[in-house]
Amino acid sequence: MHRTKVRVVEGVLDANDTIARANRADFDRAGVCVVNLMSAPGAGKTTLLERVLSDLGGVRAGVLEGDVQGSLDADRLAALHVPVTQLNTDPGFGGECHLDANMVRSALDQIALDALDLLVVENVGNLVCPAEFRIGEDARIMVSSVAEGEDKPLKYPLMFRACELVIVNKIDLLGHVDFDMDRFLHHLDAVHPGVSVLLTSARTGEGIGELRAWFAGLPQRVGAAV
Amino acid sequence: MHRTKVRVVEGVLDANDTIARANRADFDRAGVCVVNLMSAPGAGKTTLLERVLSDLGGVRAGVLEGDVQGSLDADRLAALHVPVTQLNTDPGFGGECHLDANMVRSALDQIALDALDLLVVENVGNLVCPAEFRIGEDARIMVSSVAEGEDKPLKYPLMFRACELVIVNKIDLLGHVDFDMDRFLHHLDAVHPGVSVLLTSARTGEGIGELRAWFAGLPQRVGAAV
Repeated sequence: MHRTKVRVVEGVLDANDTIARANRADFDRAGVCVVNLMSAPGAGKTTLLERVLSDLGGVRAGVLEGDVQGSLDADRLAALHVPVTQLNTDPGFGGECHLDANMVRSALDQIALDALDLLVVENVGNLVCPAEFRIGEDARIMVSSVAEGEDKPLKYPLMFRACELVIVNKIDLLGHVDFDMDRFLHHLDAVHPGVSVLLTSARTGEGIGELRAWFAGLPQRVGAAV
Repeated sequence: MHRTKVRVVEGVLDANDTIARANRADFDRAGVCVVNLMSAPGAGKTTLLERVLSDLGGVRAGVLEGDVQGSLDADRLAALHVPVTQLNTDPGFGGECHLDANMVRSALDQIALDALDLLVVENVGNLVCPAEFRIGEDARIMVSSVAEGEDKPLKYPLMFRACELVIVNKIDLLGHVDFDMDRFLHHLDAVHPGVSVLLTSARTGEGIGELRAWFAGLPQRVGAAV
């Protein structure tokens, strides 16, 4: 029984990787650098994007907004005059708890890729399944709020392994929650040694400049034609 | 294509309901009242249980602890001398992002049901899939932390509909986060009119007495043989 199950799962993931490669080829053709932004619900992904995308120098950024349903986050980001496309997993995809390569592909004809240098894909808020599905991205970021507790890398190790940058957000709450930063970083190092870490607060602005620089420099770092 | 997909999903859920009914029958035979406790990662489920289970009067409580991997939460609860059983979705179940009836069933032979009046099943931290799978429970609670923001009922409506009690937790942070309680309750009322709500802080103890009373009174309310 288990063997059969594993084969089926591998089949699904193979199909995902095939479509992710097709997405990747389209992104490369358009010279767009793509970031997959992941976190638990309410960790602050959208607010961070509001802060960062308002000023990325000459980098032309767009957002693909993934949600089970609704367009609350897309509406917030559209107010920044950033091109935003909403992708709901509810109507067509059965209320899936993550984005996969095929869902992203289904939205590509609504995005003017040629007009972008950077596309940020804001995934569904979830610390499990989004980490299992590549979408053709150049880099993956995961955001962890200090309000969630310092044990999260140990409880959701795949998510913390499957990213190039970990953002520890809401650090303005550090005096008000039981969160030992040293212990968090120790746990993170245990599951993903050497991963880049940024400490941020969208409220106070701490770390926002560094995050903006990270985004602005990404197209050049991955060698996309900007 | 979509029709086929929907049929398959319905088939899976039918099988789940069949097994959930078998669990239900076992719980009834043993006179155990069962609560399915759900939330996003880091909303404070385990800490609330630590506060509440330490003193439930004469009610004999146990916990079935669901995690993708590890036993951090189970270890914390075992320190209270409450019988705790760990159920990991990682080794046998492919790292699933939720508990289903079959996973719960696989753990039942490790739980002395006859020695319990109340079994709390702490689900995997996730606001999407846990709401879709009944496990044979009497009641479902969902915990939402004020740090997650007031928009969560609108973004994850199924989860907020699929419960008899909504706990708004970490209210000690209300002065430090952008969270308008009236607006949250308005959103909640829009997706689940009339649902019971408890405001709690595991840190200050606010609302913990009421939550303890809710748990202690549940066996009698659902008419289980206690």
